[in-house]
Amino acid sequence: MELTIGVDVGGTKIAAGVVDADGRILERLRVPTPETVDEIDASIAEAVEQLRASESGGSVAAVGVAAAGFVNEHRTTVRFAPNIAWREHELADAVGKRVQLPVIVENDANAAAWAEFRFGAGRDATDVVTVTVGTGVGGGIVLDGKLIRGAFGMAAEIGHMRVVPNGRACGCGQTGCWEQYASGRALARSAFELAIRDPKAAAPLIEAAGGKIDGLVGSMITEVALAGDPAAIGLFAELGRWLGEGVAALANVLDPAVVVIGGGVAEVGDLLLEPARKAFNHHLSAGANRPHLQLRGAEMGNDAGIIGAADLARTR
Amino acid sequence: MELTIGVDVGGTKIAAGVVDADGRILERLRVPTPETVDEIDASIAEAVEQLRASESGGSVAAVGVAAAGFVNEHRTTVRFAPNIAWREHELADAVGKRVQLPVIVENDANAAAWAEFRFGAGRDATDVVTVTVGTGVGGGIVLDGKLIRGAFGMAAEIGHMRVVPNGRACGCGQTGCWEQYASGRALARSAFELAIRDPKAAAPLIEAAGGKIDGLVGSMITEVALAGDPAAIGLFAELGRWLGEGVAALANVLDPAVVVIGGGVAEVGDLLLEPARKAFNHHLSAGANRPHLQLRGAEMGNDAGIIGAADLARTR
Amino acid sequence: MELTIGVDVGGTKIAAGVVDADGRILERLRVPTPETVDEIDASIAEAVEQLRASESGGSVAAVGVAAAGFVNEHRTTVRFAPNIAWREHELADAVGKRVQLPVIVENDANAAAWAEFRFGAGRDATDVVTVTVGTGVGGGIVLDGKLIRGAFGMAAEIGHMRVVPNGRACGCGQTGCWEQYASGRALARSAFELAIRDPKAAAPLIEAAGGKIDGLVGSMITEVALAGDPAAIGLFAELGRWLGEGVAALANVLDPAVVVIGGGVAEVGDLLLEPARKAFNHHLSAGANRPHLQLRGAEMGNDAGIIGAADLARTR
Amino acid sequence: MELTIGVDVGGTKIAAGVVDADGRILERLRVPTPETVDEIDASIAEAVEQLRASESGGSVAAVGVAAAGFVNEHRTTVRFAPNIAWREHELADAVGKRVQLPVIVENDANAAAWAEFRFGAGRDATDVVTVTVGTGVGGGIVLDGKLIRGAFGMAAEIGHMRVVPNGRACGCGQTGCWEQYASGRALARSAFELAIRDPKAAAPLIEAAGGKIDGLVGSMITEVALAGDPAAIGLFAELGRWLGEGVAALANVLDPAVVVIGGGVAEVGDLLLEPARKAFNHHLSAGANRPHLQLRGAEMGNDAGIIGAADLARTR
Repeated sequence: MELTIGVDVGGTKIAAGVVDADGRILERLRVPTPETVDEIDASIAEAVEQLRASESGGSVAAVGVAAAGFVNEHRTTVRFAPNIAWREHELADAVGKRVQLPVIVENDANAAAWAEFRFGAGRDATDVVTVTVGTGVGGGIVLDGKLIRGAFGMAAEIGHMRVVPNGRACGCGQTGCWEQYASGRALARSAFELAIRDPKAAAPLIEAAGGKIDGLVGSMITEVALAGDPAAIGLFAELGRWLGEGVAALANVLDPAVVVIGGGVAEVGDLLLEPARKAFNHHLSAGANRPHLQLRGAEMGNDAGIIGAADLARTR
Repeated sequence: MELTIGVDVGGTKIAAGVVDADGRILERLRVPTPETVDEIDASIAEAVEQLRASESGGSVAAVGVAAAGFVNEHRTTVRFAPNIAWREHELADAVGKRVQLPVIVENDANAAAWAEFRFGAGRDATDVVTVTVGTGVGGGIVLDGKLIRGAFGMAAEIGHMRVVPNGRACGCGQTGCWEQYASGRALARSAFELAIRDPKAAAPLIEAAGGKIDGLVGSMITEVALAGDPAAIGLFAELGRWLGEGVAALANVLDPAVVVIGGGVAEVGDLLLEPARKAFNHHLSAGANRPHLQLRGAEMGNDAGIIGAADLARTR
Repeated sequence: MELTIGVDVGGTKIAAGVVDADGRILERLRVPTPETVDEIDASIAEAVEQLRASESGGSVAAVGVAAAGFVNEHRTTVRFAPNIAWREHELADAVGKRVQLPVIVENDANAAAWAEFRFGAGRDATDVVTVTVGTGVGGGIVLDGKLIRGAFGMAAEIGHMRVVPNGRACGCGQTGCWEQYASGRALARSAFELAIRDPKAAAPLIEAAGGKIDGLVGSMITEVALAGDPAAIGLFAELGRWLGEGVAALANVLDPAVVVIGGGVAEVGDLLLEPARKAFNHHLSAGANRPHLQLRGAEMGNDAGIIGAADLARTR
Repeated sequence: MELTIGVDVGGTKIAAGVVDADGRILERLRVPTPETVDEIDASIAEAVEQLRASESGGSVAAVGVAAAGFVNEHRTTVRFAPNIAWREHELADAVGKRVQLPVIVENDANAAAWAEFRFGAGRDATDVVTVTVGTGVGGGIVLDGKLIRGAFGMAAEIGHMRVVPNGRACGCGQTGCWEQYASGRALARSAFELAIRDPKAAAPLIEAAGGKIDGLVGSMITEVALAGDPAAIGLFAELGRWLGEGVAALANVLDPAVVVIGGGVAEVGDLLLEPARKAFNHHLSAGANRPHLQLRGAEMGNDAGIIGAADLARTR
């Protein structure tokens, strides 16, 4: 059975693993992300060598790297990364030379979406969109069993689909992007505004933040919501509404059978998914005359990047 | 050389032709669309037989029907059509029994998009989105050389992507759909409103409509704009702006290399395309860090449906 | 004690009454609104004469006419009325000649607002805005104890304040007007859309309309909501949200102490007012640093026009 | 002839003058704004005393203070100021005790609006709204010859009227406020975005900012626009459009005869006013059936605060 290695390179850590054809991680390791591009190349290569030297790593056939940046359509080069110094960096080549194995590079959200499609919440469907709700909103699109990369490798930047004309300013230089309404950062801002506007209702949230309302982050809000606080639940309901409305827009374009909602913010589960489903059903065009997609929580968790990248390295 | 027949079935006419592998129509005919579903089946079959009996029709291998309705993912059944009485009608089977040839059915906007991709304005690219600006806004998506149908056959309903929350009411039951801002009907409404608001500026438009301002239709506005009237040109500029902004949203999701703008309204050419390009470039997320798609006018005209359906019938 | 007569002229009926200085109606009558402008003048005059001939009508000093149209700043002329044939009609003069009494004309929503300010829900305040939620949204503004008419007699057309750029089309020729979101007509449309989208949830509403979903009108929805139906209550909650958000915009401009919500739709009471209050408090700019207005239901009911017009006729 | 003193207290300077009944400043002085509330009280008093000791200051009858903050409805207390340490500060009393003259306090935008109404661009009208386009958007409302203060002294906070639901975040805690689209800060942000998106078109702007695109401020953009640069002119055109659309919303509520556009950004003149007029005429509800207000540039310049406050001190 062919094994491959998946390496997930984020701004703070590199996580890697030996993955089998069923999407199981047989061996894994994790190191901090170094500063320079050269050091990162070396760290990736070192991680690969270490895994190959492990008991289960003998027969590794290829390496897939999930990179937090724009990857070109040939799966070889990172054009640009917001949090890593990559600029038109030929990552596949740089790592391939060092490890003497075939290497492909994939955008990390695409890799995660592929993992959900192959082994996770979308494994029973051929048309699956994964929406990753973290600090921002990312995504990956699988249609007819194929990962959609786009002409320039930039497909599925769904967080930057405009949902409000003249809306909130986005770091991408535009306004009204979906991720300004449906991301963890949007959630934190709503919590902050609530704390200013109605400190009484927000008391449990403020307490969770140790009294420092500008220190409110997603995980705290999740915790308070799961404990049953109505204000925190309301914040997730609002987020879910934006999420579902955006999914309705996507459904008109892509018509998937399954939309998987993943990312840290989605760990709150049905408190987010139920309002998202409701908003989706409310806003789907011609909803009565068409089958509806299923909106599901992700299943692959933090390993999605490793597993997806490894699996994508199988097809070269 | 294999020949196929394409049949384009609209609300008022059935147009059909024998098409060769290079997308040329060798023989063609046109009949009015009858009322009942049975009669339409019969008319399609009759058109096919007539074309087969023609000089060039001898070796026809298959039939592709472009249907103005929702077609299922197996390319056999029309689920629903707004202007024809089809409701879950097994069109491929009904016609196939009559003509004893393989028959596939495809949504007409998809068929037209396929024609542009294969033989028209997108023939040099593998990732092409076609936007058809007629009474409404339709579309077709080709990614990596494949027509995207979606899990339920309903992909590329791009005219119903929401672009304005709580926006204009749409016939689909939703509000703020793109086609309420970027279609021929939107153009006519803008002209009507201008005529009410500023009859002086709108004088050439009102004259073109014979003084009946609620009789203003797209073709009149095109004519007046092409004659250089600033008010009419301004209406197309506004339409182009909405068009370009919607294309920017699509580009974030699909990342095509080429977007083809077709349909009757697009016949005005650069008066529509230039403002659309400008708005697209203005609104593309992270525009400075990525290659831009090309926005082009369609090339296949009214034959796109016939040619696209015929060509799609080649792949069964 | 001085008495005056108030006459409320609507599209279907003329209601009139003798009103005392405390806003009590001592005598009243009602006739259908005739077709022509002349006949309406005559009917108004006849109503006045009849009331003067009544027991309590002896000492009437003046007449105030509440007219459903744009009234000029001198309170003499109806510039335009949507449902009556008045076009620059000198109504005060036409009636005055007939009845030989001083006559003033006032917009009906202004007259109703004045009644609420003088004798109704705003009687304890000097800065009161009345929002009338009927088929459309009308209003009247009292600041520092004075009715605000505007330079051209057209102040308080608050239903046409734009709340959504590129929003729903309005009969006034613009888009996104408040009354497209916060009126009885908006309520009926939401109910209709719900019935299409989710017939199960809308079952009690559909039943109330005798199965004819496009026959759903405000009073039916009120009845169903008051009976406790969650779907109908949800429709009022959505309406209330738009209402409260618009009131927040008005508060930034006018800073009233009291906003009175009247009109037929408001008869549902707290099912509308509570969500409106919540949305208002949510959306008031710098809400923590300023006193908040009170949002109250109207108290004067259908007599507001008669009483307000009569009282305004006292100040000539 | 009665003289009064006007004192305009901003975050950086205190400007004061002796003003006659025709709005002429006979004597003036200017000092920096000190840090503490006490020092500011003392500085105001000292300025008043100094002016009284001047040749023209003999017969001063009262003092009006224009304060950059929320002033209560009794014109005595500053509730809150964003840039000065006033919090519920009884400013009229504090200064009055020191100078032994009657003192009234007025919001600075209200004072400036009053000056435009009495002696400036609105002197021929009784219903005048002044929109001050500076860093933010402020305003003052005069209806029927009276300054509108509101029930709590907070009327005319027109910059915080919401014009875009879910729009740009505002410092007031809300989103979509008018001043996020129609202020000097909005202008600077648009220039910044243009410089990022299209450095070539923005070259003259970037040069004016010494190459530091985040150093672009309103005055630079004005200069470049007045020199004829199309990109800078385009930025003012966009600003003017938002301005005119907001004025249309205000006109539906207040129906003024004149709207005066003042503030530093308006010094660019018709490059701002013409697009504002066009947008206003386009967006006024029922525009064909009603007289239109006039939209004019301010005439009183930086002295408006002093003159308006002084004049308001005449009516006690």
